[in-house]
Amino acid sequence: MLIREKVEQAKGILRELGVDCWITFVRESGLCGDPSLAFLAGGDVTWHSAFIISSSGRTWAIVGEYDRRSVEDLGAYDRVIGYVEGIQKPFLECLKELDPARIAVNFSRDSEIADGLTHGMYLTLVDFLSRAGMEGRLESAEKVISALRQRKTAAELERMKEAVRITEDIYGQVAGFLRPGRTEAEIAAFMTRKVKEAGVAAAWDESTCPAVFTGPQHAGAHYSPTDRRVEPGHLLNMDFGVRYEGYCSDLQRTFYVLRPGETRAPDAVQRGFDTIVEAIERARRKLRPGVQGIEVDRAARECITSAGYEEFPHALGHQVGRFAHDGTALLGPAWEKYASKPFQPLEEGMVFTLEPRLPVEGHGTATVENMVVVRPDGGENLSTPQEELLYVRGGE
Amino acid sequence: MLIREKVEQAKGILRELGVDCWITFVRESGLCGDPSLAFLAGGDVTWHSAFIISSSGRTWAIVGEYDRRSVEDLGAYDRVIGYVEGIQKPFLECLKELDPARIAVNFSRDSEIADGLTHGMYLTLVDFLSRAGMEGRLESAEKVISALRQRKTAAELERMKEAVRITEDIYGQVAGFLRPGRTEAEIAAFMTRKVKEAGVAAAWDESTCPAVFTGPQHAGAHYSPTDRRVEPGHLLNMDFGVRYEGYCSDLQRTFYVLRPGETRAPDAVQRGFDTIVEAIERARRKLRPGVQGIEVDRAARECITSAGYEEFPHALGHQVGRFAHDGTALLGPAWEKYASKPFQPLEEGMVFTLEPRLPVEGHGTATVENMVVVRPDGGENLSTPQEELLYVRGGE
Repeated sequence: MLIREKVEQAKGILRELGVDCWITFVRESGLCGDPSLAFLAGGDVTWHSAFIISSSGRTWAIVGEYDRRSVEDLGAYDRVIGYVEGIQKPFLECLKELDPARIAVNFSRDSEIADGLTHGMYLTLVDFLSRAGMEGRLESAEKVISALRQRKTAAELERMKEAVRITEDIYGQVAGFLRPGRTEAEIAAFMTRKVKEAGVAAAWDESTCPAVFTGPQHAGAHYSPTDRRVEPGHLLNMDFGVRYEGYCSDLQRTFYVLRPGETRAPDAVQRGFDTIVEAIERARRKLRPGVQGIEVDRAARECITSAGYEEFPHALGHQVGRFAHDGTALLGPAWEKYASKPFQPLEEGMVFTLEPRLPVEGHGTATVENMVVVRPDGGENLSTPQEELLYVRGGE
Repeated sequence: MLIREKVEQAKGILRELGVDCWITFVRESGLCGDPSLAFLAGGDVTWHSAFIISSSGRTWAIVGEYDRRSVEDLGAYDRVIGYVEGIQKPFLECLKELDPARIAVNFSRDSEIADGLTHGMYLTLVDFLSRAGMEGRLESAEKVISALRQRKTAAELERMKEAVRITEDIYGQVAGFLRPGRTEAEIAAFMTRKVKEAGVAAAWDESTCPAVFTGPQHAGAHYSPTDRRVEPGHLLNMDFGVRYEGYCSDLQRTFYVLRPGETRAPDAVQRGFDTIVEAIERARRKLRPGVQGIEVDRAARECITSAGYEEFPHALGHQVGRFAHDGTALLGPAWEKYASKPFQPLEEGMVFTLEPRLPVEGHGTATVENMVVVRPDGGENLSTPQEELLYVRGGE
């Protein structure tokens, strides 16, 4: 169902971009899968396989004979061809029939979601196309794939909302589990149990999903939860999401652990947290179609540096979809590793995280991550934004 | 531990092949991971990352700052460099220090396990190397990676034996569940529950692991179990494996469903089954270091065709390791899709499946899949070979 919806969407994107056909060329996708395959096939394919969509609306899948029936069952392709010995002959027949002037394939220097074609498969493809005199017609499908991923359909947004709902529910449950003396690893294990009870999966590698950090000088993002214990006076944060029917959430929450006698956080902690909330709000209002991600990142970054904090050493936000890090356009600064991503114009329907962070001396990190959809008048919250510091009350 | 063992092994392989350094170059490996990364890092990496092993024994990992500590903790690299803005500078510094004459990277037309470098990342790499005047030094790491994967260490073989033990245990349990009237889908669901109870994962995509086929004209390999019911007179087969601590098993079993009054299978069924067992035995005896896979495949294939059956439309067997389909050398015929794989000489320590099949008119498919390790005097069974037809007794 979703695959038929995305294949239809792809035809329109090809017409819009003036590209005649888009070819996804993969093998043994269980080992090294092209991220676009999830929109084109229901599961993995074994031998050299080509999924071909043309701007004229015609669609082919050429797969090993043993994979044929599973692909036919999708009902997304006019023709499904199963071969036994090799793909070259049926593939060239299809290309000759189509005779496309512009052929987009899945490689990109700048965008990993559009870079699923391996170099060995690229060499094979060039070899095939040169036999048909078409090797000069190849180009990157980055724009096709970016549009396909970022223009979330109603069915995709529904799945993401459910992923967000489950995530917020687990955040609600873990709040009752937090107390001084618990270790980061114990908190993570509690959340992982709740993920399994909910019948979903972690949105990324389980060793860092959830990531849990407590107190000052913690291990830092992307590191597994440790045996460090929650203590009064700590800022405690978590980065966590789930994958529901193939679609992800990605949210962060910050808690303050009250000291004996305290009824609220110290001013320095509150000021850090409020600065994060303000930075997110400024970014959310800037998030409109046509704006570049670097402008949105700058709004949040300047909010933080002008309040006297050091700037966060990462992008403000990334797209979310089938992966927690998904899509080409990025809300980030002009750093080498982000390539052209911060300069892509935003489109309605993109889903972004907003996740600035800052250190509060002696307490830990203040960081919130919300998820928003780009709309004509600014970002629309897909998750419930954290606007108040959450409190963990003392042990005994 | 395993990673340190494999990194050490890689240094020796580089010396043996005269390659000066091997570079695995990846980003966002959760989206599109290089199959070699599992031997080099404990989990996924986010930004452009380079894992560099030199024949002189020096090892570097250059990763995004947030991934640095996880990689340091492996204890497998002399130097772990974390960067914030971009990889180019530390990467080129490392390459200049090393000045390798032959640089192997992960692309291959013929072998998917050695083809983890995407084309976009290849272009970036060539660009970096050309700035150091080294772009002409690149070559395929196919031989390095093939050797690394196929030379199973003791720790790897132990994990595979445990995966086999769990698989055979589940086959034992499902035998008691089989009876006329059960559907393929019910049988698969029973096995999937047992996989979860054992705390392991399916060895490949759960929709076809296990694959369950009953009776004549079933849906065919790589197709999900259907609502077709087991009936007396059917040959019933299953293709199934588990992944235990990152290592897989892959085994098939064939059952015959006795008709009322029958105490053994009809002669045609028994003869088909015995032909499979004989074909496997002939192949097992041929499985020695230095032999080509095509010779082993031929021994089994001719055993089947000379008994009057049609040849199986696939290779006799593939390597198993971190994936159910793993490694470059293949026991297969000279078909286009297998490229050079059937011509690679076998090495001691490789683990192969042996899985011929044949149709028995009116009953279904006879097929057995065993796992064997290549030894100097022939294949050594890693699994318990199925040498007798298993019986399913009548319903009431």
